[in-house]
Amino acid sequence: MARLCLTLEYDGTDFAGFQIQPNGRSVQAVLEAAVFEVTREERRVFPAGRTDSGVHARGQVAHLDSTTRLAPAELARALNAVLPRDMAVLALREVAPDFDARRDALAKTYSYRILNRAEPSPLRARFSLHLRGALDTAAMGEAAKALLGTHDFSAFRGAPGGAPEDERPRRSLERLDVETRGDEVVLVAEGRSFLRHMVRNIAGTLIEVGQGRRRAADVAAVLASRDRARAGPTAAAHALCLESVRYR
Amino acid sequence: MARLCLTLEYDGTDFAGFQIQPNGRSVQAVLEAAVFEVTREERRVFPAGRTDSGVHARGQVAHLDSTTRLAPAELARALNAVLPRDMAVLALREVAPDFDARRDALAKTYSYRILNRAEPSPLRARFSLHLRGALDTAAMGEAAKALLGTHDFSAFRGAPGGAPEDERPRRSLERLDVETRGDEVVLVAEGRSFLRHMVRNIAGTLIEVGQGRRRAADVAAVLASRDRARAGPTAAAHALCLESVRYR
Repeated sequence: MARLCLTLEYDGTDFAGFQIQPNGRSVQAVLEAAVFEVTREERRVFPAGRTDSGVHARGQVAHLDSTTRLAPAELARALNAVLPRDMAVLALREVAPDFDARRDALAKTYSYRILNRAEPSPLRARFSLHLRGALDTAAMGEAAKALLGTHDFSAFRGAPGGAPEDERPRRSLERLDVETRGDEVVLVAEGRSFLRHMVRNIAGTLIEVGQGRRRAADVAAVLASRDRARAGPTAAAHALCLESVRYR
Repeated sequence: MARLCLTLEYDGTDFAGFQIQPNGRSVQAVLEAAVFEVTREERRVFPAGRTDSGVHARGQVAHLDSTTRLAPAELARALNAVLPRDMAVLALREVAPDFDARRDALAKTYSYRILNRAEPSPLRARFSLHLRGALDTAAMGEAAKALLGTHDFSAFRGAPGGAPEDERPRRSLERLDVETRGDEVVLVAEGRSFLRHMVRNIAGTLIEVGQGRRRAADVAAVLASRDRARAGPTAAAHALCLESVRYR
């Protein structure tokens, strides 16, 4: 038995998130079906982080166990041959038997893409949120600074009922950049782990700041309040992408 | 009556090309329906170039006449409000009554995107052709040089029956670059006008050169032969994008 670590890219549009759902096509179910098709083994796949419905990944990481005699590169090729077009294995290697994709992750990096111009972009519509009015990115950057570091992020957690009540709300946000890339504003968030919906709730709040509907200086107070009702709305899922996961 | 010039972006995946088809959703039909919905006028839209089924556009240009009293910016906004997600008006302006999007075009620029790495990319699958083996881009660039300038491009025209037989095969290729952009090889072709399938036939031929299945030096002989059977296959449509059209 060997423990394997996979790096995955997927277009989240047609997935009901990572985790297996009673109804709905999940990343996990499609990947486990591909593993079964190639190895004839029924194996559970464990991700670094469960992405929500509609969220994309350019560098999700997951581990699984297998007794396959295929070499890692052969197994990756075989999986890609049976996976649907919206999912691919980018890398596959054998790791130590105690490797855990979630627990051992030192940092996860998410991007949140906002197309910030008057006209929509059909070629980017699947992967970005279209906001017409020019965002005040300086104010957004200012607001982002208040969220950096280790805090109780209860104000930015999933809606009541979304996250398990016993989830500890203390998290460390190591990076939260507001980058202008051509006609896009891209939020880049990095941390060891995130609460459910946390990046999208932060995005929704920073967008309100960028639109002048909320002052940058208010964001520190929202964070300190630990009151979900005081933060902005959960921004749309399809603009979020899990870019990479870092390990030692 | 005013003549209007539109710049269009579309994701060609779900279109049966620009031109109205008896069966199949065309860019033209969807755009004309949007014009009718907004202006109540039944107007024909004339493009700079008809893109084939599956081909994308980041900067297609088209003209139409209208008696609408909406200002150009208002009309653009109104069209975008009714157009489906896979098409958008990027710009709209009034032009001289004798402006013709096709005839007045000084140059059209197409890109042909090849993802050149071992693993497929779900996030780019709609817009690029995946080729595993490393392409010899130096040889492709060498072959491309032989096609620059004004020639009889019969060897690279559409398959028999595809193009009208009386179409004049003389065309000027002003630019044909082979660019490496990260893990992609992008062919950029620019010229005043192209024969049907010409860019895709050139792409198919240059790909064979890049794969070592055809010598760069042969391409000049293929061109001189004017024999379609001697060039490579028509490369897949979904990797082609009409990037822009230049006018005086």
